[in-house]
Amino acid sequence: MKAIVFDVFGTVVDWRSSLIAQFAELARETGQAIPGETLADEWRGHYAPSMDRVRRGEQPWTVLDDLHRQSLDRLLEEHGLDFDEAQRQRINRFWHRLEPWPDSVAGLTALRRHYTVGSLTNGNLSLMLDVARHAGLPWNVLFCADLFRHYKPDREVYLGACDLLGLPPEDVMLCAAHNSDLSAAQALGLKTVFIPRPHEYGPRQTRDLQAEGDWDYVAKDILDLAIRLRSGDSA
Amino acid sequence: MKAIVFDVFGTVVDWRSSLIAQFAELARETGQAIPGETLADEWRGHYAPSMDRVRRGEQPWTVLDDLHRQSLDRLLEEHGLDFDEAQRQRINRFWHRLEPWPDSVAGLTALRRHYTVGSLTNGNLSLMLDVARHAGLPWNVLFCADLFRHYKPDREVYLGACDLLGLPPEDVMLCAAHNSDLSAAQALGLKTVFIPRPHEYGPRQTRDLQAEGDWDYVAKDILDLAIRLRSGDSA
Repeated sequence: MKAIVFDVFGTVVDWRSSLIAQFAELARETGQAIPGETLADEWRGHYAPSMDRVRRGEQPWTVLDDLHRQSLDRLLEEHGLDFDEAQRQRINRFWHRLEPWPDSVAGLTALRRHYTVGSLTNGNLSLMLDVARHAGLPWNVLFCADLFRHYKPDREVYLGACDLLGLPPEDVMLCAAHNSDLSAAQALGLKTVFIPRPHEYGPRQTRDLQAEGDWDYVAKDILDLAIRLRSGDSA
Repeated sequence: MKAIVFDVFGTVVDWRSSLIAQFAELARETGQAIPGETLADEWRGHYAPSMDRVRRGEQPWTVLDDLHRQSLDRLLEEHGLDFDEAQRQRINRFWHRLEPWPDSVAGLTALRRHYTVGSLTNGNLSLMLDVARHAGLPWNVLFCADLFRHYKPDREVYLGACDLLGLPPEDVMLCAAHNSDLSAAQALGLKTVFIPRPHEYGPRQTRDLQAEGDWDYVAKDILDLAIRLRSGDSA
């Protein structure tokens, strides 16, 4: 195994708390009541369906920043929230300012001593550059959906990254907190590691609390993965 | 200006001295007489013509690693040099172990505090990952020809990078030691900075000794560029 690529939203960064904190900051600044938790959850709720429309060809290729904006506009209308264009642009960029989980930076830093470490994300590259800078993520390389003009779980994303790495799929491992992402990668021959992020979706999370497939590794978090790989542990 | 992208071979790394040193090492190990300087210069001589064959459609898309190998095989035959397959693979990877110019790492490190810093290179991504690791180059992002399946000076490479950055060309600057590369970028609306590398082609270099266009900046080297941009100097 030569390279480890990471799902980012939820696996490396804590999008939900980060969005809620930024909604709270905006509420303080504007004096407007903003249901931050609800907005964060509903906004993320639009995530998969909006990409699926692109994946099914019902909408031409659209980067995630623009899908986010379409969902945001709908959400604000549904909630009767009145924000002007500048504020909407600012809110859309909340996704560019996401905090890492506590182990992410240390884990990636340890792993990149021995492996090529990259993103494998449905976010667009310009978004990922901002996230990397904000969260201090020490990527060697960014694999983003807009490089391939496909969204995961389309095979073009997983195999496109392997091809650019010049590696066969079995030399590349996907690390994700989502069993479905790992399933798609495994079917294409990539190695897999599951790390649980039991609070990604908040205190009442019910999905992805544990490994649900025959993954090559299961680790507590990214730092734990680095330690296991050095000690030669398997799952 | 938000992002600075760099030509790599010659601008950021000293390919010629690095190849010659590795040929010398191989000669010591094998006891075989190897004309390292000649081979380095002739190998690089095949570089532009080999990419031009791809650019003109005479050869299907081929990554630089494979173009290098085709040129190497021809070169070894011309010089009557006998290397087996494993040795040829090792020699081809000399391009993965290139040393930076003395200012490159410090300059890129200074620039990335304020700008997105990326490669914009005809090398393939897997090659560039190795060069980055070997030379310690702190890239934010790697733009490589195989992302676009085009070689510079095709417009797809320059505009493709701007598009992935989510920036209009005038917010992106190309830094290169080659006037022709800057010319292509300027024609597409990118900003440009020339830095001379008067020994890139060895002691008798005649080309690209100075700026030959109306570039936005001319700097002594990458570190000097970082200093000029902070002090608000123009060309």
